[in-house]
Amino acid sequence: MPAARFITLEGVDGAGKSTHAPWIARWLEERGVALCLTREPGGTPLGERLRDLLLDPAQRVDAKAEALLMFAARRQHLVDLIEPSLARGHWVLCDRFTDATFAYQGGGRGIATARLALLEEWVQGDRQPDLTLYFDVPVEVARTRLLANRTLDRFEQEQRAFFERVRAGYLERARQAPQRIRVLDATREIAQVQRDLAGILEPLVERP
Amino acid sequence: MPAARFITLEGVDGAGKSTHAPWIARWLEERGVALCLTREPGGTPLGERLRDLLLDPAQRVDAKAEALLMFAARRQHLVDLIEPSLARGHWVLCDRFTDATFAYQGGGRGIATARLALLEEWVQGDRQPDLTLYFDVPVEVARTRLLANRTLDRFEQEQRAFFERVRAGYLERARQAPQRIRVLDATREIAQVQRDLAGILEPLVERP
Repeated sequence: MPAARFITLEGVDGAGKSTHAPWIARWLEERGVALCLTREPGGTPLGERLRDLLLDPAQRVDAKAEALLMFAARRQHLVDLIEPSLARGHWVLCDRFTDATFAYQGGGRGIATARLALLEEWVQGDRQPDLTLYFDVPVEVARTRLLANRTLDRFEQEQRAFFERVRAGYLERARQAPQRIRVLDATREIAQVQRDLAGILEPLVERP
Repeated sequence: MPAARFITLEGVDGAGKSTHAPWIARWLEERGVALCLTREPGGTPLGERLRDLLLDPAQRVDAKAEALLMFAARRQHLVDLIEPSLARGHWVLCDRFTDATFAYQGGGRGIATARLALLEEWVQGDRQPDLTLYFDVPVEVARTRLLANRTLDRFEQEQRAFFERVRAGYLERARQAPQRIRVLDATREIAQVQRDLAGILEPLVERP
């Protein structure tokens, strides 16, 4: 079996991550991959309690506090779940990771990316995803999908301009790491997106 | 009335902070000071929920995650309580602040003080306490007092060597900021410590 891979899924809410994540997991598992499916913020008892705080629409959270909480949850996630899983040969498929912090806290909230990069290096060392699938949709499309489906969390309640900055933040990260981050046009039919996903994942599971 | 002051209380558990804090508060209030009595981690709804996580003996918290959570709670505390209180002329008396992070996460957990200083500057800007009262006791004395009184939280359950490093961390901070940090020998009788406290506080409340 090929070396364990760390794959992250990125995109605003409504971009289709929750539709594609289980499909990707099944696709990999059908090819013999032992997989750990997880998410950020979250993935550990501490992380999930921080997630509750971060998403609660009634919670006041300053932008810098928000960034610090994201990295705190990430650190625990790396130490307790991501690194041990990879070490024993399990792939990790994670719904959001540090690119989301650059997009939401950087682009959305306006925190300097140089500051986020300092925290990234301190918390992660040289750990980066092997592959990041970024599901890109215009803000309007994501909003329409979201509003049809559920009540909005603290982030989802932000205004359109916030999500335009988040999307710009994601696209800027993708420009900086084109080898790692694959941008998928997620306005298309689900089956079309899945054909792209299979094409991207296929080389990872091929025996050497 | 003199300008609003930001006073912090520091020391390991068992050093006597909880005995002296209400006495200091009453002493100041009797002299006409409008006072906000608060604590870290805590002091805001977010901070108090982070405090619950941080002190819970059942919670796994990595050292870096712990430092990030402390600064996240601190940021919210500064933005929502400390700065607004000082701005409207209320003094702030805070049970633990950043010196505790240097002592516990720096000295105790071994996180580099240069890294903590970066976080301190980012979270606080140039805000520093006007006066810090550090209650110093040998570790053995603090342990004996604590064990007589209550069940221990996640920090209090640490071993003696941890608290020796915490105390060394506090004393190092006091050496670096001798104007701001007053070291009180807290092994003495309560009345003796209170005479010292009155002597230190008296100049702050004198009319110009």
